[in-house]
Amino acid sequence: MAFTYLTNIPLDQAKKDYLGMLSERGFGARSERVRVQDSFGRITAGAVYAHINAPHYACSAMDGIALLAKDSFGATETTPVTLKAEQFTDVDTGDPIPNGCDAVIMVEELVRNNDGSVTIHAPAAPWQHIRQIGEDVCAGEMILPGLTDITPAAIGAMIAGGVLELEVLAKPVVGIIPTGDEIVPPCTDPRPGDILEFNSSIFSAMLSSWGADAKTYPIVPDKYDQIRDMLKKAASECDMVILNAGSSAGRDDYSVSAVREVGEVLYHGIAIKPGKPAILGCKGAVPILGVPGYPVSGIIVIDELLRPLIDRWYLRENDSGTRTRAKLTRPVVSGLKYQEYVRVRMGYVGNNLMASPLPRGSGVVSSFMKADGIVEVPQGTEGYTAGEEVRVKLLTGKQQLKNTLVVIGSHDPLLDELSDLIHREDRRLFLSSAHVGSMGGIMAVRRGEAHAAGIHLLDTETGEYNRSYIRKYFPHGGVYLIRCVGRQQGLMLQKGNPLGIAEFADIAGDGVRYVNRQKGSGTRVLMDYLCDRYDVDRDRIYGYEREEMTHNSVAVQIAGDSADAGMGIYSTAKLYDLDFLPICTEEYDLLIPETAWNSGMVKQLIHTLRSEGFRNRITSMGGYTLDRPGEIIDVF
Amino acid sequence: MAFTYLTNIPLDQAKKDYLGMLSERGFGARSERVRVQDSFGRITAGAVYAHINAPHYACSAMDGIALLAKDSFGATETTPVTLKAEQFTDVDTGDPIPNGCDAVIMVEELVRNNDGSVTIHAPAAPWQHIRQIGEDVCAGEMILPGLTDITPAAIGAMIAGGVLELEVLAKPVVGIIPTGDEIVPPCTDPRPGDILEFNSSIFSAMLSSWGADAKTYPIVPDKYDQIRDMLKKAASECDMVILNAGSSAGRDDYSVSAVREVGEVLYHGIAIKPGKPAILGCKGAVPILGVPGYPVSGIIVIDELLRPLIDRWYLRENDSGTRTRAKLTRPVVSGLKYQEYVRVRMGYVGNNLMASPLPRGSGVVSSFMKADGIVEVPQGTEGYTAGEEVRVKLLTGKQQLKNTLVVIGSHDPLLDELSDLIHREDRRLFLSSAHVGSMGGIMAVRRGEAHAAGIHLLDTETGEYNRSYIRKYFPHGGVYLIRCVGRQQGLMLQKGNPLGIAEFADIAGDGVRYVNRQKGSGTRVLMDYLCDRYDVDRDRIYGYEREEMTHNSVAVQIAGDSADAGMGIYSTAKLYDLDFLPICTEEYDLLIPETAWNSGMVKQLIHTLRSEGFRNRITSMGGYTLDRPGEIIDVF
Repeated sequence: MAFTYLTNIPLDQAKKDYLGMLSERGFGARSERVRVQDSFGRITAGAVYAHINAPHYACSAMDGIALLAKDSFGATETTPVTLKAEQFTDVDTGDPIPNGCDAVIMVEELVRNNDGSVTIHAPAAPWQHIRQIGEDVCAGEMILPGLTDITPAAIGAMIAGGVLELEVLAKPVVGIIPTGDEIVPPCTDPRPGDILEFNSSIFSAMLSSWGADAKTYPIVPDKYDQIRDMLKKAASECDMVILNAGSSAGRDDYSVSAVREVGEVLYHGIAIKPGKPAILGCKGAVPILGVPGYPVSGIIVIDELLRPLIDRWYLRENDSGTRTRAKLTRPVVSGLKYQEYVRVRMGYVGNNLMASPLPRGSGVVSSFMKADGIVEVPQGTEGYTAGEEVRVKLLTGKQQLKNTLVVIGSHDPLLDELSDLIHREDRRLFLSSAHVGSMGGIMAVRRGEAHAAGIHLLDTETGEYNRSYIRKYFPHGGVYLIRCVGRQQGLMLQKGNPLGIAEFADIAGDGVRYVNRQKGSGTRVLMDYLCDRYDVDRDRIYGYEREEMTHNSVAVQIAGDSADAGMGIYSTAKLYDLDFLPICTEEYDLLIPETAWNSGMVKQLIHTLRSEGFRNRITSMGGYTLDRPGEIIDVF
Repeated sequence: MAFTYLTNIPLDQAKKDYLGMLSERGFGARSERVRVQDSFGRITAGAVYAHINAPHYACSAMDGIALLAKDSFGATETTPVTLKAEQFTDVDTGDPIPNGCDAVIMVEELVRNNDGSVTIHAPAAPWQHIRQIGEDVCAGEMILPGLTDITPAAIGAMIAGGVLELEVLAKPVVGIIPTGDEIVPPCTDPRPGDILEFNSSIFSAMLSSWGADAKTYPIVPDKYDQIRDMLKKAASECDMVILNAGSSAGRDDYSVSAVREVGEVLYHGIAIKPGKPAILGCKGAVPILGVPGYPVSGIIVIDELLRPLIDRWYLRENDSGTRTRAKLTRPVVSGLKYQEYVRVRMGYVGNNLMASPLPRGSGVVSSFMKADGIVEVPQGTEGYTAGEEVRVKLLTGKQQLKNTLVVIGSHDPLLDELSDLIHREDRRLFLSSAHVGSMGGIMAVRRGEAHAAGIHLLDTETGEYNRSYIRKYFPHGGVYLIRCVGRQQGLMLQKGNPLGIAEFADIAGDGVRYVNRQKGSGTRVLMDYLCDRYDVDRDRIYGYEREEMTHNSVAVQIAGDSADAGMGIYSTAKLYDLDFLPICTEEYDLLIPETAWNSGMVKQLIHTLRSEGFRNRITSMGGYTLDRPGEIIDVF
């Protein structure tokens, strides 16, 4: 069914109109009664008043005797007064003041006589050394105003004031309805075409962080009646409803019609990307938000359109996150028609906060996990150039960014292991790696965008690795080359090598499907060098143009039988249980700018490279040689 | 039993030694397996690797046809290629690529023929428009390093990667054992001598905010065997144990002996106040912390000594809170022997952050609730003078402090109602009131410490309220006097007036127990004026020296039958169901410095004073008259 969106409403207007419409329909928080003990972190619905006094009885503030003050009047050093045993009572701190007494004399100021009487040399003022009723809280006093966060101490004050239950703002219950014929519950063995239903888990976690409770309904197939019926049920059971998937064009979707039948639709189509096909609807005061099926689109729509509703529910200001300015490492191109959201990885290199755009596919949920921020390109803007300062909504705290080692360059799984090891050594430190190939790493270091780059570049004239490239791209020095690992490069082949590939040149054979690495990667440099050396015609390699960004993704294509061969490292072939035809051992080193050299993060990196823990991890991965990792290589 | 503390160890040393001892005993986090859906906000125990590829099948990135790319080779504008129906398959975006196909051609680039074949005018490159296996996550790749916070997007990435369960750091279970013969569960009708057990509720909330789970045991009476047995049980069931109360001297306590019998004691007695009698013990790797019974002491001991253990459990930095500098409004006196904790109320007046010490009694839990910060007076320091800048640990955020209207002066319950109304009007705004009497309010405004002061000061010469005082204390102006309410002052008397008090002078009668207000309060000024006017000898008033700080606390003493009469306002007498002998109507106004006049908070205050909502609240409280509240009174 060809589908035309009804609207392309700017986000701010859509939000305003949606909130306005819902307010008219009576949208707002319910309150609920909870035990005071269960009220931590909740918000009072109305003012809370004490029921009883705290303390609720007068008690002694000292160890001593309780007496009627009058009986002590007139006592002086020269005219002491003696109290008979029946005129006073021994009290410890905290003991209730007995009936008929109204003062306490400290034990230090008494003389005890053998007949049980006591002698005093000064009068007691009425109510001296007595902790009065209501000193802490008086009955009837306001303990907490309405709409107030309940703290641990407030819980104590309420119980002290005899408040055992109170009205708090109820957490809104948000129904989530996953739809789609292809959607299956999370599992480890999906069939081709199955899409794992993880959106509701992501949304639930987001909702929980905003103080809402998610209620996830079973997956509904793409059947109009079933979607409509589930929507009715959810709208009657929940305070808000998310209808997931089925809101985009080009699919057999019934969402918008179902929302319209159950309630009403304000807008279908918001001027944001990703997230455009959102549906803003409601049934009475219950908002129904149609959310696209792609996880990234869904996350953005829920953040931009549902979160303000939850803030409104709690009558709090809309918390739209912290913004900061950062320098783009690559250009961002955007359409004029939408406000566009570009996820970025971030890091401080020197004093510069850098933002590197991440893959923009809205199905790539891992890119959201890796994102430290989001660049919002406004509607009507064509994008930004590399080096431009842009405003970024932060997803990672600035302190963490300051403690993040930014590694940009060639991919090797050992970088993930380094990240794990460094963070375990010092939980304040993080390592963030981006895979742009060895040449990309050199350029990133030159531009001051990285603390380190993994490189393995063969000088095809000399057979030497890395050094000549460093001399060429850093003629004035200013960088250190740090020994990391030797690693085995070769051809990754299908298990059992069914095509009988025995030497490099066989990749150009009939029926061999090759999968290549991207230009600028060290592995691609090696590949092209090998083609020249063994005189292999690139045009005869089926799949030469097919590019993957990492060793892993090359291996996955072979393991998944969409390719037969690809260049890669032994540890990856081993991980995916592939055959491996060794070709050479290369030097994978780390390039570090002098400016970063003295930072605590780089020091920890060097320390970890030299550690037993790193050696153990690398050894168990296989295909690596270790020769004094962490040592500075003489380059210039 | 006279008890001597064993030690007076400085806090930092105690913490260090305690952590050292526990580390030796093997203290540290357990891990536990949870469903990925339940892992939000948890921390990975180890690195998490993907089990499957995401996507796990190659799928179309476009609407169009899937084909074998080879079949399209050679197609150009002039030499088109026609594919027979069996050579291709129609695919929509997201559909799996059929076996034998390795490319997609977009629907826009096809010519469909009547016989079911299609014609194309350009070749397809292998794997064009195909979303590759593992584009998002490759099997075997590290999704999250160890010791990493689990975000919503990470949950999505894990499920996409076929991870359904993972090991996270277990939340430590902290056992809380309340002890004491006088301790009773929370209720609304405690008997004299009963102490409501609210500490465990406060501690549970604190623990929950730090990521621990509290397990509260039943209250144990002061019986050695029972305390010891409960301690054994808790130490075997929990990761940490809090033994509450019974750790101070002067009580029938067995705590330290019980800890020693069950495990071992490192220190008994830390150089902090409140909190000195803390016990630092353990049973093996399970810390046992003996915590004093007074809530304020308990809160401080747990914050200073248990929180670092939880931070260590999670291998995170000890978060000891945010510090800032603020100006003290009153002196703070401290002993040399201890590090002392003084709770303060805080507020910005102009650009100055002010800190006013709160009552220091360690039984006064409401003072902790009202505290915005804690001044830590180091061991060896005698305290600070008024006006001194001190370091404060913040309990309230700076932004909230900037939005807090500081009202210092005479007490009236209407201030609480104003606080509630203002916060309801605008959740960003807060009103914090301190009760120091009318003269105290005037002084606070003079010193620039308050945005407003409630005052009701009778000029006994002219019978006029407030104006002459303002002219005297602010001879150069610079303040506004704002009309608030007229209120009925009089004598609050026991219900039914059993002593038959008929006029003011009767308070000096035999057997009448009076309760007074503190010097400097408007009500005390009135009281003293009445004594002079009716010729009442103050020495003949029993209880003239007994001072309470608020109308409520005076009323509570009368309602509790520890006094027969006290000056106060009608609304309070009504709240406590007391008899009331009216004496005069006074003008309770608000004094506001010009410097605060244009702030949004003061504007909201004036707006609220003039509102229907305020009128309704005041009317239902009784005893007030309203005559254009919020209007500026002509003073100078």
